[in-house]
Amino acid sequence: MGSKKDKTREFIIETSYAIFAHNGFNAITMKDICEATQLSRGGLYSHFASTQEIFEAILVKMNQKKEMNFAEEMQKGECAVTILENALLLMEDEMNHPEDSLSLAMYEYTGNVATGRMEEFNKLGEDKWTSLIEYGIARGEFRPVVVEEIVNVILYVYQGVRMWSRIVKMSPETMQSITSHIRKQLVQ
Amino acid sequence: MGSKKDKTREFIIETSYAIFAHNGFNAITMKDICEATQLSRGGLYSHFASTQEIFEAILVKMNQKKEMNFAEEMQKGECAVTILENALLLMEDEMNHPEDSLSLAMYEYTGNVATGRMEEFNKLGEDKWTSLIEYGIARGEFRPVVVEEIVNVILYVYQGVRMWSRIVKMSPETMQSITSHIRKQLVQ
Repeated sequence: MGSKKDKTREFIIETSYAIFAHNGFNAITMKDICEATQLSRGGLYSHFASTQEIFEAILVKMNQKKEMNFAEEMQKGECAVTILENALLLMEDEMNHPEDSLSLAMYEYTGNVATGRMEEFNKLGEDKWTSLIEYGIARGEFRPVVVEEIVNVILYVYQGVRMWSRIVKMSPETMQSITSHIRKQLVQ
Repeated sequence: MGSKKDKTREFIIETSYAIFAHNGFNAITMKDICEATQLSRGGLYSHFASTQEIFEAILVKMNQKKEMNFAEEMQKGECAVTILENALLLMEDEMNHPEDSLSLAMYEYTGNVATGRMEEFNKLGEDKWTSLIEYGIARGEFRPVVVEEIVNVILYVYQGVRMWSRIVKMSPETMQSITSHIRKQLVQ
């Protein structure tokens, strides 16, 4: 829609993302978000009722990234390999930016909500990758792999790197070796 | 040695492990460890000067687990496949116990020390797996894989599961699909 209200909402989400990535979830209050966005208390609360709501909006947005919109690409009949390459590029880029990792914030957020919410988000990722790999196999572009196995490896190796890149310094070669592994499993 | 002093040290390490796994690193003080171990302040400090020292002793101990002592097994000329299977069993068992995961504590600990310390521990894991895989390839038991790539996948998929098993509920099948993937990569 692009109205002023939408733009402010987007701005809150973007600003908060950086704050949560840097500080985790627990340490951050609505007051911190007010300060960072320079919105009044009333202004902020007219968009979100809590840091939990803001964080959930961030998670939803992460799931809607263009490179991760496999469903739309598949509907257009795009090559599975092309869709995969775009996703791997995005993953590599994200893994190379440990400062943007939400791992700690997600961990802490989970301590504050019914776990069902996070399982829902996890399921989105699982379903997305499952459908892409099945699509690639059906088109003869991907090897006939055990889909569930590869999906688990992709999801958790990515999360492991996202988390550990905040603990130790990782080289771009490490990230590339991981995307290369995923590519080799799938592409004929 | 098995002296009383050693036993107390072991007891402190074991008791603290559970506390760090449950609460992370930052929230825990030497007073908490005193209470949990029922040692006097003087008694505890005669073994460790800080929670950081205790945590480092835990990390050292984790690296010395029998199933992970690849060097000794290789020196004895043990089959690479047997060494791998024992390691995978241990990994599966650990992944099935999210309550024992130190992921959050390691994350927080890193914020408190020179990062070199954690990189050292990470390097130990890398070297261990690299030497086992090279050993297996040299003996013709493992496929001629790209060693660095597989080592990265093993290390980070494991860490991803350890972390995420605290965020979402994971089934034993998920853990098995991951060890099965590692096995398939290596064993001819």
